[in-house]
Amino acid sequence: MSNPSIMPPIEIEDASPEVRAIYEDIMQTRGTDWINNFWKVLAHDPALLKRTWDTLRATMAPGALDPLVKEMIYIAVSATNGCEYCTYSHTASARAKGMSDTQFMELLAVVGMANETNRLVNGLRPAVDEPFKRQAG
Amino acid sequence: MSNPSIMPPIEIEDASPEVRAIYEDIMQTRGTDWINNFWKVLAHDPALLKRTWDTLRATMAPGALDPLVKEMIYIAVSATNGCEYCTYSHTASARAKGMSDTQFMELLAVVGMANETNRLVNGLRPAVDEPFKRQAG
Amino acid sequence: MSNPSIMPPIEIEDASPEVRAIYEDIMQTRGTDWINNFWKVLAHDPALLKRTWDTLRATMAPGALDPLVKEMIYIAVSATNGCEYCTYSHTASARAKGMSDTQFMELLAVVGMANETNRLVNGLRPAVDEPFKRQAG
Amino acid sequence: MSNPSIMPPIEIEDASPEVRAIYEDIMQTRGTDWINNFWKVLAHDPALLKRTWDTLRATMAPGALDPLVKEMIYIAVSATNGCEYCTYSHTASARAKGMSDTQFMELLAVVGMANETNRLVNGLRPAVDEPFKRQAG
Amino acid sequence: MSNPSIMPPIEIEDASPEVRAIYEDIMQTRGTDWINNFWKVLAHDPALLKRTWDTLRATMAPGALDPLVKEMIYIAVSATNGCEYCTYSHTASARAKGMSDTQFMELLAVVGMANETNRLVNGLRPAVDEPFKRQAG
Amino acid sequence: MSNPSIMPPIEIEDASPEVRAIYEDIMQTRGTDWINNFWKVLAHDPALLKRTWDTLRATMAPGALDPLVKEMIYIAVSATNGCEYCTYSHTASARAKGMSDTQFMELLAVVGMANETNRLVNGLRPAVDEPFKRQAG
Repeated sequence: MSNPSIMPPIEIEDASPEVRAIYEDIMQTRGTDWINNFWKVLAHDPALLKRTWDTLRATMAPGALDPLVKEMIYIAVSATNGCEYCTYSHTASARAKGMSDTQFMELLAVVGMANETNRLVNGLRPAVDEPFKRQAG
Repeated sequence: MSNPSIMPPIEIEDASPEVRAIYEDIMQTRGTDWINNFWKVLAHDPALLKRTWDTLRATMAPGALDPLVKEMIYIAVSATNGCEYCTYSHTASARAKGMSDTQFMELLAVVGMANETNRLVNGLRPAVDEPFKRQAG
Repeated sequence: MSNPSIMPPIEIEDASPEVRAIYEDIMQTRGTDWINNFWKVLAHDPALLKRTWDTLRATMAPGALDPLVKEMIYIAVSATNGCEYCTYSHTASARAKGMSDTQFMELLAVVGMANETNRLVNGLRPAVDEPFKRQAG
Repeated sequence: MSNPSIMPPIEIEDASPEVRAIYEDIMQTRGTDWINNFWKVLAHDPALLKRTWDTLRATMAPGALDPLVKEMIYIAVSATNGCEYCTYSHTASARAKGMSDTQFMELLAVVGMANETNRLVNGLRPAVDEPFKRQAG
Repeated sequence: MSNPSIMPPIEIEDASPEVRAIYEDIMQTRGTDWINNFWKVLAHDPALLKRTWDTLRATMAPGALDPLVKEMIYIAVSATNGCEYCTYSHTASARAKGMSDTQFMELLAVVGMANETNRLVNGLRPAVDEPFKRQAG
Repeated sequence: MSNPSIMPPIEIEDASPEVRAIYEDIMQTRGTDWINNFWKVLAHDPALLKRTWDTLRATMAPGALDPLVKEMIYIAVSATNGCEYCTYSHTASARAKGMSDTQFMELLAVVGMANETNRLVNGLRPAVDEPFKRQAG
């Protein structure tokens, strides 16, 4: 048994009309008939729930980057931070958007490599090369 | 003036034949005529230099993921970890591979959002939903 | 079943007189009749146990900051680092000091936001504004 | 000289009407006549600028927690993550809201202690005590 | 029950000849007759499995540092990052190489202290002393 | 020019008798005639200065682990966290205790590798193997 969540999930049938409307919007946007626990615990602060959902929807929408690429970036951050729930939920989302086993393993290889070289740099402290300063901007 | 690097960069003209061969390989692979400071400080351990370069080349090569996507994942990790050198160098690489301003800003928006929700999850500790366990694998 | 702790907890009845005296001090200071697992595993190094307890008591004592504010800062750090045990234990402590649901959710909203903007900054690398340098000190 | 910011700051006089309106709102809300670099680099994505400012204003507004407490939580997160810009800017904000030297040093003492015990826990892996599970929720 | 691993472990009897050969090498090098789950999940990308194993073997081999010291450094990083699996596996390896209870507790005391002072520094931002710049290199 | 430290260093000649006594103890213990900036900024809270120095001296003293090994563990944590000041100061200390270039590079190779595999684990989530649970304790 894992530990209980610190704030209990607020189920759909127990939600206030304000929270329920956000739940409905999440389900409709995703084409699902259930709400995952992240939103159910966030619902203890309806304003935070609304802001977070609105921001997530705007951030993850198709734009200059493909939605699957955005999910993979989300996994990269979550694995770097070691967030277990987030790794499961965004790997599931990436799978639903078509991520193959091979793409997933390549993603993790890059994440691992970046975490390695970040620390080689942190220990050796090379100066940022002048060409990089010009090319980055 | 930033602080000096902890190990001094080994310039091409001062490199051992073993190190110089790796430098040549890096320049040829990248089509450039200079070596960035990361490799020059790593050169104090030629075996580590070689392993790191070989792994980087294999990891960042075109595969199931596009090389630009891989560079953006590298930026996501480096910004999450706060590695300054790595952020400059991989943003420069992503630029060289065609990343637009809009793509870069969208990437950072996802990185910021993921770091935010990772901590909402860490504080509230929701249980991983059963459907996510099945869909992630 | 979660994984076993790496060093087994040393129960009160099995503790050396030196460790038992610290346990007694913890219980008396807190007005409880039990010792939590953190101290029981730390007890494998009695000097470390004593230093850590003495420092914690001094650090968390009322001072220029309210003890509840200190607990909330502890939660902010623990959620940022993703330390599960620490999040449970310091949320419990904050609750015992009167933290409301609303305060807890506001705390997490700030923690999430700070983690987000930290990474927007890490990716964009703005220079520290001159007024901030003067005002911070 | 520190490194240049990766995206150049967009000054008030060069901003689009959309961005300028947000800048005006920031200055009016804060009662200042200048915009700090964080917003000026974020302005390359006006939608992200707007969302981030709206969320920051909502999150940092007086509520169940005092605005100064919120600034101190922001510092705690920024110091834990090592975000230099964020540490300067939010320490400046906390100063402007009245944080004393003594409060600042006590804040850092808690941040340091929490980061220490988070890792003692990570290495020893004690189980979450049953009373903490009940009291945290 | 902990959550299932995201990619299922590939057992020895189900492994391709390429993967099986690496498994055999791991078992022979370690003098064991079983493979731990890390390698079994990495096996979904045989090239990544091979590179990671080759690098690990080279990195952890006796050199200027004692293998036990290397395992303790691995624990220090894993506890700092909060990687549960890694903490168990490398503590087990360090035990197999002779790490005593006292050595383990001293190691964690240093890890805790370093994490504490890292954040005191991050909050106070002292300049790097000139003698340290000279002595570090 | 790097940014100014957030709290100004308190020089020896400006220190209170309480702080000066700690400075003297630090210099005498280390056999030096100067105090590094970390202690000078911490001196704004004399009780924190004293606790931190006492803990550091106890933690880094010869014990079951060699003082040089302890300094290398300190570097491993500081590079993982990206603390620039700490990396310079503890690399300088390790040099003063005899760390060779080869030892330093091997240390960083392990730090990099551990940070890499920590994230491969975080993304793939293998279960802790039963033998590791028994052997770690």
